[in-house]
Amino acid sequence: MTIELINTGTELLLGDTVNTNAAWLGQQLAAHGIEVSRQTIVPDGPAIRDAIAEAVTRADVLILTGGLGPTNDDLTRECASEVLGLQLDVDPAALATLEAYFAHRGKVMSPVNRKQAMVPPGGEVLTNPHGTAPGLYLPAALGRSKGLACAMFLTPGPPREFKPMIENHVIPKLVGLYPEYAGRTVSYLKITGLGESEIVDRVERDLEAVPGLTLGYCLGRGDVDVRLSGEPSAVEQGRGIVMSKLSSYVVSEDRRILEQVVVDRLRELGRKVAVAESCTGGTIASRITDISGASEIFGYGFVTYANDAKCKELGVEPQWIQSDGAVSHRVAQAMAEGCLNVSGADYALAVTGIAGPNGGTPEKPVGTVFAALADRSQPTQVRKLFFPGGRDRFKLLTSQSALEMLRRRLFGLEIP
Amino acid sequence: MTIELINTGTELLLGDTVNTNAAWLGQQLAAHGIEVSRQTIVPDGPAIRDAIAEAVTRADVLILTGGLGPTNDDLTRECASEVLGLQLDVDPAALATLEAYFAHRGKVMSPVNRKQAMVPPGGEVLTNPHGTAPGLYLPAALGRSKGLACAMFLTPGPPREFKPMIENHVIPKLVGLYPEYAGRTVSYLKITGLGESEIVDRVERDLEAVPGLTLGYCLGRGDVDVRLSGEPSAVEQGRGIVMSKLSSYVVSEDRRILEQVVVDRLRELGRKVAVAESCTGGTIASRITDISGASEIFGYGFVTYANDAKCKELGVEPQWIQSDGAVSHRVAQAMAEGCLNVSGADYALAVTGIAGPNGGTPEKPVGTVFAALADRSQPTQVRKLFFPGGRDRFKLLTSQSALEMLRRRLFGLEIP
Repeated sequence: MTIELINTGTELLLGDTVNTNAAWLGQQLAAHGIEVSRQTIVPDGPAIRDAIAEAVTRADVLILTGGLGPTNDDLTRECASEVLGLQLDVDPAALATLEAYFAHRGKVMSPVNRKQAMVPPGGEVLTNPHGTAPGLYLPAALGRSKGLACAMFLTPGPPREFKPMIENHVIPKLVGLYPEYAGRTVSYLKITGLGESEIVDRVERDLEAVPGLTLGYCLGRGDVDVRLSGEPSAVEQGRGIVMSKLSSYVVSEDRRILEQVVVDRLRELGRKVAVAESCTGGTIASRITDISGASEIFGYGFVTYANDAKCKELGVEPQWIQSDGAVSHRVAQAMAEGCLNVSGADYALAVTGIAGPNGGTPEKPVGTVFAALADRSQPTQVRKLFFPGGRDRFKLLTSQSALEMLRRRLFGLEIP
Repeated sequence: MTIELINTGTELLLGDTVNTNAAWLGQQLAAHGIEVSRQTIVPDGPAIRDAIAEAVTRADVLILTGGLGPTNDDLTRECASEVLGLQLDVDPAALATLEAYFAHRGKVMSPVNRKQAMVPPGGEVLTNPHGTAPGLYLPAALGRSKGLACAMFLTPGPPREFKPMIENHVIPKLVGLYPEYAGRTVSYLKITGLGESEIVDRVERDLEAVPGLTLGYCLGRGDVDVRLSGEPSAVEQGRGIVMSKLSSYVVSEDRRILEQVVVDRLRELGRKVAVAESCTGGTIASRITDISGASEIFGYGFVTYANDAKCKELGVEPQWIQSDGAVSHRVAQAMAEGCLNVSGADYALAVTGIAGPNGGTPEKPVGTVFAALADRSQPTQVRKLFFPGGRDRFKLLTSQSALEMLRRRLFGLEIP
């Protein structure tokens, strides 16, 4: 099957919107073993007709996004029908759904919205519960009179409308049309604490030897998803390889991110964590509180950016800062232990380091950081880490490492 | 001038990489009044030849990204030359630069890299100080024997190599080729506190009446950039309109984000801020400390997620939480004033609210938040705000509103 994607939208070409739909769709299709062979982006308006006319001569399936709105510039429906030589007509059911959408919101539908209910004969409306623009499926047979045999899916541009339509309508239909893509499964193993090249070195050769297994890597923020797709037996074999080679580095098998795994585990155990942050300046607390339900396991965070804040809030002895420096094993440990005492939590994470670009010394260059984990039932553990390469990256990787220390503790895994 | 963009890279179609280069380039070109008429993404390999052959029949200028590496799949150079009917040959200067690049890093160049120094006759090498892949400029005249008249720019895919090449080579050459785009200027006015539609309502009609002014909106995280481009006099006129209609909502005219503006202003004034966060869970502190030099103006942050943390750390009276609720005017005010006292800072921001999805009540639904600004020289000010629509958005818009209260105070502007 050859599949192409056409995105319409002047805002995409002007760069005012980043085309995240395309990347997301690429991942969804790749998970089913389907690779997009070309993606074309054209402005709103009639340019879409040329792009469709070209694509239908090359592709078996064409997915279009955008241009289904009510304005004069929204021409995807019209252009697709024109290429196939079909007339549009108002579909009573689609019109009723549209009117109900407005009525439900206490509004009267404007006459301009009527065109959103236009459907060519043989076309199938794809419902859109999240917006006014219904999608359309135009089976390949509709182009027969023009000598064409390309199935088309017309989908809305806004991601919150686009994504459910792809998941609920487009992919099930595709798999129905091309049963060879049915029965495939996909598994994501989220890895943290190893770089992409380290992951490749440890597993790629073995994974590539599994017949029928498709392998991909999605780089996340501080983690990497290893994507395995294919027949269930091949994916299961691949999963076994990743688990045996990377075992403790596997954070989740269901795409949950590190902070979600940590929060879930703390809730499960009925334990609490507190954090004391210098160089990350609130990032660890912010990541924990990104997770719904965090209040059950997190009550206290301290952003002790200044030295006197470390002493006053966490009980760090000023002479330790004097002797060892604020960025030191001893201060990190004292911050974590002070945080544990003040908060009454079961675990406390603390980090102190040099985010840069200024403040580095030859002994402690920019990027140096100490991360400590205090625990009521075990001695405090401190790791010295080094993340040069920019302030954003530093904060991300430092918070990731601290949360990963906690994850390992919560699952009884060794902390490197 | 008709300009098209071709991105090569299987990773773009698989969705493993989001095409941020395309959005960035769109913005750079739009700033010069140039709109990309089509963007095509093809996988690595020979598919690029077809895409080039089609584009050169439509466009005056074609910018290509990616496929300039040393592997067998990197075929952009070869395909472009083939379409133009040109032979590639090693360029001694490009080869020397490439060898020097490796030597500087203490490495010996592999023979596979030689192909990166191949140039067709009449092609011009565009230097790439950030990677091994030199760019290429193929003037429109090179296609004359094939009846073509499309100038091509071949650029590397990695953003840190791509962006400088666009800025330093491609745009200057484009403006040289098409002098009507020279002498244009661009201005960005960053607005916060108003939604895109409110901005449109207030300025669009007047801005569209300015002859030769091109208008765009770039939605940021909690702010909107109004982009004005055109002749300097038109841009200046447009700028005047935005300043007069939106005045105090204009955060910066140099693309500095809100937290940067706030940190810069605090440094200028020699003042400090502290923060006490409940529902934002460290996001305000994290945004402040994203800015290099934040340690001069920020020493203390409190993430008082639990009620007892608000009392213990900030001196909030437990009976106020009892009587008014943790999400209340009185508790927000007490948090800010307590934070001011404990930290010794000049200003303190505090927020308390219901991020959701749980915890809402009929009187205080999910999204309700109180933000307070305490100031040693003025009475504490408290705003009640409402940001339903998801936890991420809630944290973003709440932190944005709190920082905006401080910005207004620091610049002597009224807080709404």
